[in-house]
Amino acid sequence: MFIGCQFSLYPMADGFVGVILDAIKDLDKYTKLRRQTDDLSTLLVGPPEELFPALEECFTAASRSGEHVVMQVTFSRGCPGEPDDPICRTDLLPPRPTDATPENLTRAALERLRKPEKSGIDTACQISLYPLGGGDHMADIYACIAFLKASTVNVTAKNFCTRLDGDAADVMAVIEQTFIGFAHPGGHVVLTATLSANSPSKKRAA
Amino acid sequence: MFIGCQFSLYPMADGFVGVILDAIKDLDKYTKLRRQTDDLSTLLVGPPEELFPALEECFTAASRSGEHVVMQVTFSRGCPGEPDDPICRTDLLPPRPTDATPENLTRAALERLRKPEKSGIDTACQISLYPLGGGDHMADIYACIAFLKASTVNVTAKNFCTRLDGDAADVMAVIEQTFIGFAHPGGHVVLTATLSANSPSKKRAA
Repeated sequence: MFIGCQFSLYPMADGFVGVILDAIKDLDKYTKLRRQTDDLSTLLVGPPEELFPALEECFTAASRSGEHVVMQVTFSRGCPGEPDDPICRTDLLPPRPTDATPENLTRAALERLRKPEKSGIDTACQISLYPLGGGDHMADIYACIAFLKASTVNVTAKNFCTRLDGDAADVMAVIEQTFIGFAHPGGHVVLTATLSANSPSKKRAA
Repeated sequence: MFIGCQFSLYPMADGFVGVILDAIKDLDKYTKLRRQTDDLSTLLVGPPEELFPALEECFTAASRSGEHVVMQVTFSRGCPGEPDDPICRTDLLPPRPTDATPENLTRAALERLRKPEKSGIDTACQISLYPLGGGDHMADIYACIAFLKASTVNVTAKNFCTRLDGDAADVMAVIEQTFIGFAHPGGHVVLTATLSANSPSKKRAA
């Protein structure tokens, strides 16, 4: 299994370099993550147990600058083009239930959903889940949307993605469950997430 | 068929609102596009004939501000959860070749690739193609990577995405061909693209 993400932080401020460097300065403590950075994004490879806390820390740290900040993340697991990597070994990826109906997938994800301590960062987010490589991918997506609607964040339908509003810690816990809880545990799954804080814009569509 | 994208502009500058408003002020001239904006992204629905020029214009206009600017786009076509929409009627989506070998898909995309006038905007980009709903999705991805390597931009492999470097006009022409030229024309296909200009960071990974 190969698990990881490419992520980028976009602080909408003249001092964006300082906001980014400050947000990522403590990433070394996540000793199970391998990192590689270029001018477009940072690659993190490793288990979800460290991936999600590390991303939450970067996003909340950048948001505490007070600037309008966006974090873009592309998560991937099981890509057939990537080698197995022992660094990605995880206990979080649940086995596919014997009776993997949409209702059972939704219920199991809700039971696993963490109720973390609030971060205090009001977060707007949109996510898309892409279960690749066959099977009825829309059934997994609809099961996931049912999970989102019953979860700890507010959910709004959009074209091509689903909008989540809530505390950054809840949003990240919901994204984690979306990533691990739907589509086959051995399948190729991609999830994209855009998280935003401190936007001066109104939330409603125009 | 339902074709469109969600896109966002991220100018890394205190004056980000002005850069964005200036970049999108001429979008009304694309009369075949339907638009909807919230605080996270702008939805464009319509044919590729207008989608790609509109996005290129927004990105190059924002980049001419001189600020470090990133544009994030999620393109989608054929999503089974969306209704058919006459506004999306297009002559650009090529029929699947009778003999759809990877080599034939690659060659046909290279033949169709536009050689546009340069924009003068040096652009770093990364893209990912997600052919959904079955079939051998990795075969389409490998055919697409062969096309990218023989195209008008410089290509670098990354985990979970492919990096493209070149003039913004060439990058956008290559993205257009990636979106329409691989995976079944009636299939559900998603393509994500991150375009960046004026970054102060070094291009190589560290």
